[in-house]
Amino acid sequence: MDIRSYIEPRARMVDKALVSAVKALPRVHPPLREAMLYSLSAGGKRIRPVLLGAACELFGGRFRDVLPAACALEMVHTYSLIHDDLPAMDDDDLRRGRPTCHKVFGEAGAILAGDALLTSAFTVLFSCESRRIPAGRVLKAASILAARAGACGMVAGQSADLEAEGFLSKRGVPRARASALLNYIHLHKTADLIAAPLEMGAALAGAAARESRALSEFGLKLGLVFQAADDILDVVGDKRKLGKSGSDARNGKLTYASLYGVEGARRRLRSLVGQAKSKLRPFGRRAAVFHALTDFFAERDR
Amino acid sequence: MDIRSYIEPRARMVDKALVSAVKALPRVHPPLREAMLYSLSAGGKRIRPVLLGAACELFGGRFRDVLPAACALEMVHTYSLIHDDLPAMDDDDLRRGRPTCHKVFGEAGAILAGDALLTSAFTVLFSCESRRIPAGRVLKAASILAARAGACGMVAGQSADLEAEGFLSKRGVPRARASALLNYIHLHKTADLIAAPLEMGAALAGAAARESRALSEFGLKLGLVFQAADDILDVVGDKRKLGKSGSDARNGKLTYASLYGVEGARRRLRSLVGQAKSKLRPFGRRAAVFHALTDFFAERDR
Repeated sequence: MDIRSYIEPRARMVDKALVSAVKALPRVHPPLREAMLYSLSAGGKRIRPVLLGAACELFGGRFRDVLPAACALEMVHTYSLIHDDLPAMDDDDLRRGRPTCHKVFGEAGAILAGDALLTSAFTVLFSCESRRIPAGRVLKAASILAARAGACGMVAGQSADLEAEGFLSKRGVPRARASALLNYIHLHKTADLIAAPLEMGAALAGAAARESRALSEFGLKLGLVFQAADDILDVVGDKRKLGKSGSDARNGKLTYASLYGVEGARRRLRSLVGQAKSKLRPFGRRAAVFHALTDFFAERDR
Repeated sequence: MDIRSYIEPRARMVDKALVSAVKALPRVHPPLREAMLYSLSAGGKRIRPVLLGAACELFGGRFRDVLPAACALEMVHTYSLIHDDLPAMDDDDLRRGRPTCHKVFGEAGAILAGDALLTSAFTVLFSCESRRIPAGRVLKAASILAARAGACGMVAGQSADLEAEGFLSKRGVPRARASALLNYIHLHKTADLIAAPLEMGAALAGAAARESRALSEFGLKLGLVFQAADDILDVVGDKRKLGKSGSDARNGKLTYASLYGVEGARRRLRSLVGQAKSKLRPFGRRAAVFHALTDFFAERDR
């Protein structure tokens, strides 16, 4: 299966739908709309929307019916990058090869653009209801998004990540504790928002609880695969291809690479790939695309 | 009608429900939970939750059934204050008589606490569904919240407010343009989140569209009443009672008081009170509590 030819057309559909969704929001203050579109149009990989579509199709739904939910996820992901890049947080100047939002629109403008993307993501998601998706399913998808992105999910991971900065250099902590903290950070900061699209796609397509749960477990493992690859790339990757400056080492971040070394992180990655794929067993051949996506995430160079 | 004895017990119910709701969120990173509770427990007036309850009761609903929605609104309001107080925004040190969130938890901690409150507000709101409120109504209430708080609502007002800073002092702009900008700011920054509880209460109680619309129009006027009183208090109010430092003048903000002078702002306030009450005519005597709330907002000293 040529996974790139699966991802590409779907990612381009999402690109277009994102711009339309933001332009369709009425009465947005023009500088705010500009900042939102700037960060949304920076050419992300759109892997979360693609995952949502794949999950929906696995259970008989159609990608175009759930495009608003796919856009909502990308809006939430983009808001998290904008806030994460702020001077008070990771203080990054580059993102996807372009100056970060606060470098262009100022700190206040970037804080507000993030707030607007997060809030308006729900507006966009709710518009699924008018596309023949029942209210109960939309509400379930929105509950998943709020839980996985909120105080129990991604933001909890960000908060733990902040606390862990400089952790390795400053204290003589036992490796087991550092490992547990790293797992908490990666699970919440990254894996929650990789599991969310799979759970949301399943919810919108009306999947049975047991199948939805299996896909969710796969999603959490896939999130760790994604993050392990990211940690390795931050050390050995081509900065130009990545379009960002590799701030992890500079900020003394706790990562798979800083904790286990690059070779240790690679072993970890291979083990996670196996764990993720094992979660797909209940779906048999129907899960071919998820096997391919797992390999794609593990082997990516940007 | 003794409006204080109406507001007080309801506000205390909200106080308790807010703490319970945040404590019920599972797996929150402890420093994040502490920052969220710190800002939520600063003793706000809880006027938005009280308005939501009053709107729900107007259409035959019960306050206790919609308490999660009332809490969600207060969480969104609190997040907006936390982000508004940040050094990159209004740079305020005091809020409700206590150090602002970023003074206690740092800038990054405050950004994340705001993000967490905004996202988790939806989690809390969605829990209304388990309290015998149909999914369709919950979804409608959530749509209203996202629209009124997002890029078309409160955040648009914040963005315009930032742009207007120093506006009066720096440029020789026509009064009519300044007046239009001020109206835009107050309508979005404040009135949208005063109209939201009324619309949400109506939606959750299953009100007819026509009645809901009338109450929404009242809400926007009531929001302007609230803001006009606030602008006047920022100049003439007792800083200790207000528990904040009156940063509008310091920041060169465009307000009713800076544009029309204190006496002009008072005339404006009286006119807005009349306009707000006129919107209540369709409800006759059933709207007694809203008449009393309008007077209470106009005459408040904190």
